[in-house]
Amino acid sequence: MITQQFFLHEGREDVSLTTYVLSDSRELLDGRLRPGILICPGGGYLNCSDREAEPIALRFAAMGYHAFVLRYSVYMDQGEPYPVGKSMQKRARSLFPNSMQDIGLAFLKLREHASEWKLDTQRIALCGFSAGAHNSAMYATHYQGKDIAGYFQQDAEIFKPAACILAYGLYDYCLLMENPALIRDPFAKGLRKAAAIALLGSDKPSQQLLEQVSPARQVSAHTPPLFLWATGEDSLVPVSQTAAFTLALSKAGIPFEAHVFESGPHGLSLADQATAGSRFELNPVAAQWLPLAQTWLEKRLALPLREIPLWMEQLER
Amino acid sequence: MITQQFFLHEGREDVSLTTYVLSDSRELLDGRLRPGILICPGGGYLNCSDREAEPIALRFAAMGYHAFVLRYSVYMDQGEPYPVGKSMQKRARSLFPNSMQDIGLAFLKLREHASEWKLDTQRIALCGFSAGAHNSAMYATHYQGKDIAGYFQQDAEIFKPAACILAYGLYDYCLLMENPALIRDPFAKGLRKAAAIALLGSDKPSQQLLEQVSPARQVSAHTPPLFLWATGEDSLVPVSQTAAFTLALSKAGIPFEAHVFESGPHGLSLADQATAGSRFELNPVAAQWLPLAQTWLEKRLALPLREIPLWMEQLER
Repeated sequence: MITQQFFLHEGREDVSLTTYVLSDSRELLDGRLRPGILICPGGGYLNCSDREAEPIALRFAAMGYHAFVLRYSVYMDQGEPYPVGKSMQKRARSLFPNSMQDIGLAFLKLREHASEWKLDTQRIALCGFSAGAHNSAMYATHYQGKDIAGYFQQDAEIFKPAACILAYGLYDYCLLMENPALIRDPFAKGLRKAAAIALLGSDKPSQQLLEQVSPARQVSAHTPPLFLWATGEDSLVPVSQTAAFTLALSKAGIPFEAHVFESGPHGLSLADQATAGSRFELNPVAAQWLPLAQTWLEKRLALPLREIPLWMEQLER
Repeated sequence: MITQQFFLHEGREDVSLTTYVLSDSRELLDGRLRPGILICPGGGYLNCSDREAEPIALRFAAMGYHAFVLRYSVYMDQGEPYPVGKSMQKRARSLFPNSMQDIGLAFLKLREHASEWKLDTQRIALCGFSAGAHNSAMYATHYQGKDIAGYFQQDAEIFKPAACILAYGLYDYCLLMENPALIRDPFAKGLRKAAAIALLGSDKPSQQLLEQVSPARQVSAHTPPLFLWATGEDSLVPVSQTAAFTLALSKAGIPFEAHVFESGPHGLSLADQATAGSRFELNPVAAQWLPLAQTWLEKRLALPLREIPLWMEQLER
């Protein structure tokens, strides 16, 4: 396995791509290309959570995919305390579309190393959690437009994710603003406001900006297949966000799979001990999202296996 | 993740320990010790198969355990063709008890780095496949005796595995010799003979040696809990081997779990695309061994999680 960290902006260490590139073998793919998956942790655009980073990469690497963790542009510096509840000034770094463009940078970096890693650049999936799910959904609905393909002056096809897996994300800012009562818990209110300042520069952004940062309102024929999951009890990001996105996807005829588990808080990650910060984040029912996602993903990212083993081929000769 | 390779014998590169040591975080175990698992690939004591090495380590690392791959002493040199069918001379390197003692060396190396890696040395499991399952079962029934604790002149407790997971292994050489007709396929016969020469120096070893290298005949109160699985159709290692071992374990009152899947060939590894050399090694039914093993292992290796999340603790103050 090649574990390596790349910094994606010169002179900055906050945006990085960490690789979990699998070793090949004559017994395995024997030089054939391997699909990959790029993981965007959550953290409200304030930080990038370790609970949604390496452990997720390892879970997908164990399925046979090269895995990569992207720490994209966020508000806080390493080790800085949460700004929630304090008076918070906007910072240029984490403002739209910077964090989304970091995904574009990551796609370019993956292409740069594709032949060294034997990575199948036609089949790179994207997987995000919470704010990372928003960022991934933003990218999946904007990659072909001016902010990604246009910005990098490259063909849109090279930025297209083969599939997207999104966990408990915010997908429709307009809907959220229309129904502020959906977020009742004061802790959640504070975090939501901080996340809005980090990404949008204000907790009262213009309607035009709200539309732009609402992936559910940006779905088009370019949008890749999506797998979404969330929990009904999420008090931070209302489950109506996932419902609204699936409605938009179904109207547009984009293939998707969605799983809403009745119980469980926001931020479950794998919902098992590998990602739990405490017993509170264990949830065997919601943990079923992973095998469901694995089956769904395999339809698109199946490894190019031989039909019969090499030794059997040799015996038959 | 720390991926590092250690050579366990000075001046030799064939015996190595590769680490898949997980990154800790304030959000995860926050400095508390993490259990580990040591993986022994199969290969008939002729080589160590890549299909039962890194992909297995990643699967267990994804459960939250530090994982390690041990390439123990085997007959063939790197890149040497299979000796099967040719006249084969014994080689000192792979003879009993060398390969088993390599597991002891690995346990000592893990202890040496335990504080650096925050590894819980009281909870190190062992996982082996085919010849690696034999080697692990040998170690699990011999670690307290003259060939391990005695040989290294250390207390037996420091060598004790917390649990053993064994896949399609040979556990009773005496039984095998009594029923040679159980192996019918000429390819399997040739491989079995080569493996015997590699490990025992002869395909007609003494009864005393056969007893010694039959873990099913070495079970004692020192033997750790075991999880065994195999497939009924295995034409290389008869399923009676697993049956005989479970009989010995049940007589001795050693806790064990055993799963025999009716169908499937020898050497399925994870039985999914991550370890399949071809579509022939895909088997969704037998692949259930992994979640079964995960649940069983978690009873013994559960991570030391907090009761409630850190942020909730802080809110309550």
